[in-house]
Amino acid sequence: MKKLYVIKIGGNIIDNEEKLAAFIKDFAAVKGLKVLVHGGGKLASKLAADLGIEQQMIDGRRITDAATLKIVTMVYAGAINKNVVAQLQAHGCNAIGLSGADGNAIKAHKRPPVISPSGGGGIDYGFVGDVDSVNTQLLQSLLEQNIAVVLAPITHDGHGLLLNTNADTIAQEAAKALSSIYDVELIYSFEKSGVLMNADDDSSVISTINPTYYQELKEKQIIFAGMIPKLDNAFAAINSGVSKVIIGKAEQLQQLITGEAGTSIVND
Amino acid sequence: MKKLYVIKIGGNIIDNEEKLAAFIKDFAAVKGLKVLVHGGGKLASKLAADLGIEQQMIDGRRITDAATLKIVTMVYAGAINKNVVAQLQAHGCNAIGLSGADGNAIKAHKRPPVISPSGGGGIDYGFVGDVDSVNTQLLQSLLEQNIAVVLAPITHDGHGLLLNTNADTIAQEAAKALSSIYDVELIYSFEKSGVLMNADDDSSVISTINPTYYQELKEKQIIFAGMIPKLDNAFAAINSGVSKVIIGKAEQLQQLITGEAGTSIVND
Repeated sequence: MKKLYVIKIGGNIIDNEEKLAAFIKDFAAVKGLKVLVHGGGKLASKLAADLGIEQQMIDGRRITDAATLKIVTMVYAGAINKNVVAQLQAHGCNAIGLSGADGNAIKAHKRPPVISPSGGGGIDYGFVGDVDSVNTQLLQSLLEQNIAVVLAPITHDGHGLLLNTNADTIAQEAAKALSSIYDVELIYSFEKSGVLMNADDDSSVISTINPTYYQELKEKQIIFAGMIPKLDNAFAAINSGVSKVIIGKAEQLQQLITGEAGTSIVND
Repeated sequence: MKKLYVIKIGGNIIDNEEKLAAFIKDFAAVKGLKVLVHGGGKLASKLAADLGIEQQMIDGRRITDAATLKIVTMVYAGAINKNVVAQLQAHGCNAIGLSGADGNAIKAHKRPPVISPSGGGGIDYGFVGDVDSVNTQLLQSLLEQNIAVVLAPITHDGHGLLLNTNADTIAQEAAKALSSIYDVELIYSFEKSGVLMNADDDSSVISTINPTYYQELKEKQIIFAGMIPKLDNAFAAINSGVSKVIIGKAEQLQQLITGEAGTSIVND
């Protein structure tokens, strides 16, 4: 099996022109087959604010109403996606930017209203999509032409509706689906250097976590709060065929790939 | 050689939700290989106005400054392109939306400042691209997977710059380049039923124009003003390998293809 890297960059990189340019240069230099999944960053909120469109929040989560859907489609699948692709081309990395609608790359369904954790009636998150399927045949045909695939966090439902979809989820679903064809390493880049022994010390990176060690780290409350769903997702990916999940800093992409930096989530 | 339709829809269809939906249904029903090129319509101007960005015009042509480039990238390659693709998917037509940067589909160079027709110094149209090359290998690989290609009027220069590019030009350049592989018919849909004997009578459509007849129609001033560059471009396409150019109403797409409506520009 050929190796494939599925690399997710977070909004903090998207929002920083210099960091984004450096990351794109590093991504272009990654050898072999690769998929880039980008988040949205603050550009969409800024455009909404400039247009006087109020962002509705429930329990700290943004509701994607019709006006917001238009904005995220423009910003994620238009502005960010096309600029990332153009910059990759400038570094000699042939790349193609896709939303989930393009070539039916990622199909999703609109999330049904969910019960609010704070009680009360159902919360309708609006035009938010939960992924149903990834078109591995299309992605493979592009990757095999040595084209890097750049996925925007927008999916479609097959009935004409575009849907706002979490970029972490897209990275995970793409990695899982493509693991039937490739030896997939999934890299989540975020603002920290990896999973830390001490949350306040960015140098205390745990280099490898397997399921047994994960239990131990949770019991000792070294891993807690927001890291738990992140790691649960990482292990879910591993259990669905992804060979390795690496969590670390975008600025260290090359070292994340070689294993010199970041935290590797493995199965044994 | 297999037949390929390259179909351009103008802004007047993009701006009309009902007409656009009807057109997309008709396009989805076109049998065989097909490329759709869409213009921008008034959505970009509306978004610019909503954001308080003034549109600079020189000699009736819009200047694409940096702020306008961001807007057209979002609107053309984001909002319009992705919605058209999602609607095509809903009609069972697998489609992929591309800007020129995607897969290096269409490379262009920034237009150098030109001398103003009204005299004075050079006019800099800003981030406007004149097409250099079309990546026929990429387009062919998608078309042969029975994926309709939907091109947004945005190109790139290979050095990281996105460029605003006339949709008519993109349709023509794509048609010309692809005529090395396919038997290409290029269809320009616009608000009139075709080239008219009497500009005020939309039923006076001239069904076929060849080069000899074109000379005659120009000498008799039946064809004049804005139709001359349109037809010059059509004949240029014919002379570069496109087998037929058809000009007519988007509402009659099926009849344009069968030759029951519109004006056919042919070589003999």
